[in-house]
Amino acid sequence: MEKKDLLYEGKAKKVYRTDDPEVLYIAYKDDATAFNGLKKGTISGKGIINNQMSNRLMQYLESKGIPTHLIEECNERDTLVKRVDIVPLEVIIRNIAAGSFSKRYGVEEGTVFAEPTIEISYKNDALGDPLLNAYHAVAMGLATWDEIETIKSYAFAVNKHLSAFWKTCGVTLVDFKLEFGKLSDGSIVLADEISPDTCRLWDTETKEKLDKDRFRRDLGGVEDAYAEVMKRLEEHLQQ
Amino acid sequence: MEKKDLLYEGKAKKVYRTDDPEVLYIAYKDDATAFNGLKKGTISGKGIINNQMSNRLMQYLESKGIPTHLIEECNERDTLVKRVDIVPLEVIIRNIAAGSFSKRYGVEEGTVFAEPTIEISYKNDALGDPLLNAYHAVAMGLATWDEIETIKSYAFAVNKHLSAFWKTCGVTLVDFKLEFGKLSDGSIVLADEISPDTCRLWDTETKEKLDKDRFRRDLGGVEDAYAEVMKRLEEHLQQ
Repeated sequence: MEKKDLLYEGKAKKVYRTDDPEVLYIAYKDDATAFNGLKKGTISGKGIINNQMSNRLMQYLESKGIPTHLIEECNERDTLVKRVDIVPLEVIIRNIAAGSFSKRYGVEEGTVFAEPTIEISYKNDALGDPLLNAYHAVAMGLATWDEIETIKSYAFAVNKHLSAFWKTCGVTLVDFKLEFGKLSDGSIVLADEISPDTCRLWDTETKEKLDKDRFRRDLGGVEDAYAEVMKRLEEHLQQ
Repeated sequence: MEKKDLLYEGKAKKVYRTDDPEVLYIAYKDDATAFNGLKKGTISGKGIINNQMSNRLMQYLESKGIPTHLIEECNERDTLVKRVDIVPLEVIIRNIAAGSFSKRYGVEEGTVFAEPTIEISYKNDALGDPLLNAYHAVAMGLATWDEIETIKSYAFAVNKHLSAFWKTCGVTLVDFKLEFGKLSDGSIVLADEISPDTCRLWDTETKEKLDKDRFRRDLGGVEDAYAEVMKRLEEHLQQ
């Protein structure tokens, strides 16, 4: 299936129509942004890694019973996905305190939670993606209670499976952001991407950051970190 | 019972020890603050109104089965309460969008929700009382799941009873903040105060604000508004 006209250009991906109104063509970019677009840059080769990593992980999650938007990888940067209406909520699971959580609540980065936490933000750049809760989301008509329950249950399942997966790669899944969408029949599927852009991944032994925090915090070695987690993922999948 | 040494001075109240370690003596002040202490002023007579209104409303809630810290009013400004360990969560119920909610989510003030919403903030001035959710509160050890469930159930019951009460006074209960405490036996009771400092109260017909927003937003007539809601409350209680 070929890409047609550009539908939408996001911070990290371009989305094109195809012949089929229920199928979209995604092209991953090397552009990187942080802090709601305030910081901009390029991570060379990121689009290739994020496309391939996200597809491998979504295939893995599909095998565990979690529905995703993935249809088929077209080439190293591009993928066909099911068209969804994105639920305007960013869903964040945290196993260890880091980033905005540590700053917001004064909890030291690296503090391990007894149980994973989940939070939702209103996906709205103009408002700075503010944190909200399920009552707010329902009151504002962003989702129904049933949809939120489904999303929470998928998100915790994703955490269980990906934490276990990354552990075997010597990588700790610290936290991650998911987005969900609704298919034309109303059912919820995992959408967007799963990559070092959307996950905090620490080397389990050295605690070295292998994710976009290297870019956000000017730590250097950004490309190497993305390549390292991709290499470990591929090695593990071949076993 | 007499007041002993000052234990703590808050923004709107002083708290003293008494002879009984399980009993505290609260003295309401006329001091008013807003925006996490950035705005300061005085609302003449506020201490008297808030003390008396809070006590009448807590007595009313006790009659509906909701436990509170209230023991006995000493005089027009002062009250004896049970000593509690405050749960470090501010619990906010909203029936209508206003204030920080409207600003945070871009929802027009006055938008009526189909169902009331509840939210909790981490009671921490240094961090600006950030919004959190139950998962965060449990992960940070601020409360247990059971305590949060009890608090939520009391908060919704308070909303049901006070919304109905204020309605008969021609006043709409827009939103309000509650704090809860734990008695020495671990049981949860409603603490702090219920007053125009902690509730948004609008005249049902004219939508005129009869609460601390008159102070926050420099609308004038602050003392008159506090006196007006107190008068309506007393008239209703005498019926």
